[in-house]
Amino acid sequence: MKLATIRTPGGSVAVRIDGEHAVELGAPDVGALLAEPDWLTTAGATGGRRFATADVEYAPVVVNPSKIICVGLNYRTHILEMGRELPTYPTLFAKFADSLLGAHDDIALPDVSDEVDWEAELAVIVGRSARHVTPAQAASAIAGYTVLNDISMRDWQWRTVEWLQGKAFEASTPVGPWLVTPDEVDDAADLAITCEVNGEVMQSSRTSDLLFRPADLVSYISRFTTLRAGDVIATGTPGGVGAARDPKTFLADGDVVRTVIDGLGPCVNRCVKEGTS
Amino acid sequence: MKLATIRTPGGSVAVRIDGEHAVELGAPDVGALLAEPDWLTTAGATGGRRFATADVEYAPVVVNPSKIICVGLNYRTHILEMGRELPTYPTLFAKFADSLLGAHDDIALPDVSDEVDWEAELAVIVGRSARHVTPAQAASAIAGYTVLNDISMRDWQWRTVEWLQGKAFEASTPVGPWLVTPDEVDDAADLAITCEVNGEVMQSSRTSDLLFRPADLVSYISRFTTLRAGDVIATGTPGGVGAARDPKTFLADGDVVRTVIDGLGPCVNRCVKEGTS
Repeated sequence: MKLATIRTPGGSVAVRIDGEHAVELGAPDVGALLAEPDWLTTAGATGGRRFATADVEYAPVVVNPSKIICVGLNYRTHILEMGRELPTYPTLFAKFADSLLGAHDDIALPDVSDEVDWEAELAVIVGRSARHVTPAQAASAIAGYTVLNDISMRDWQWRTVEWLQGKAFEASTPVGPWLVTPDEVDDAADLAITCEVNGEVMQSSRTSDLLFRPADLVSYISRFTTLRAGDVIATGTPGGVGAARDPKTFLADGDVVRTVIDGLGPCVNRCVKEGTS
Repeated sequence: MKLATIRTPGGSVAVRIDGEHAVELGAPDVGALLAEPDWLTTAGATGGRRFATADVEYAPVVVNPSKIICVGLNYRTHILEMGRELPTYPTLFAKFADSLLGAHDDIALPDVSDEVDWEAELAVIVGRSARHVTPAQAASAIAGYTVLNDISMRDWQWRTVEWLQGKAFEASTPVGPWLVTPDEVDDAADLAITCEVNGEVMQSSRTSDLLFRPADLVSYISRFTTLRAGDVIATGTPGGVGAARDPKTFLADGDVVRTVIDGLGPCVNRCVKEGTS
């Protein structure tokens, strides 16, 4: 099953994507839907207004998650090729709900940064509260998967040792277009993940290369806090980011970023320099 | 004026502290109150149920802020005594709403950490949206100040370069007991700040030693995202934390942490090892 949050004149609504139709489910976004204990049944059975999928405008899959936790350094091949050792613990940092964008929204290139970079990522959407869970228990707390691009302002990210300020720019992080339940993508265990800029492939890997897998991450995070329905975990990016290229390459006004994971549908976002739109 | 959020049998409520009475203001917490455009007038004029201040139980001043942004390395004397240069930019990291505690709640010492440390901090509460504001404009976006202790699990904080996982433990961070408006504390420009553990003074400094002042921080953060009414900025801690002592000292079951800033009322929190309460 595919679930999305779309924008309508009356506000955002959660929908089920049934091929060419998006069917309204009675919740204002997928986050609110997932907060219902029996959301999987509700989402499969309910049917309200229908919209043509071709015409809908996607909001972030979850509009206001209580936590967005991102992972650095998580693709094994990329860690090793950078000459680093495989880490014992995942490197974690946060974004805010205000950082999120819909899957086809423009990415705002802020006039205070000249180094806006891409990071294609598999994102996990949490489906029910998880605290002190084992990896086996964690799997059942995963509602599904989606595509996220952890757009990073490298100049701000590296101003200090803590990356937050380069990772939490407003309206920077596309997530969507939809959540896909684990059964439809074999638990996202081995999916191709790609980022293209203006049609050129910049990142290409597979989720099988992840060092800390989705259920491992849910379990690890649940040791220090409660993950709640609708929370987002961005699982890290493979090699090929702009800052690691020679010469370094960053996003410019008009560039189109296409972030794709097999079976999860693309995010396609145009970059618009602040003040030029 | 002093504003707080207290717990009642019917749920939390925002109150004005009038000496020995806490007067209900019609909002579920100070965050909801601050979201009202004319909150200062409302808070000063309204009067509902009255509670004896001596009997109230404080919730976090803001129960569910959209952002909690913390500053590392911000007391000038402490930075210099550590042999570091004064930084050009503030070091920023996040906590989650789930990390917050009321001013007199117990601090949960998790069984997965042996290095729970204290960090007395002046906290800024945002009173209205701020985006791309100058420091002069930022001052008027500050609703008031409160006390926060950025309790830190050092073993988790330093597992990786990003501190989040050691800073965002559930139910770890007391904040309160009340917000004090800037007029009552001379914009918090020169207040004594102290942390005592079991009556022994561990940290003692003045907010005049802050390198990045509250309005500077609001302005800086507003360059990359929107600060919203109820958001919390923890402005950093002076020297004297447990991890920097010789020998290192960490919090143990039964310890009482008292965090005081002149005019802002103390947080007093007992430490309770998980599983022993």
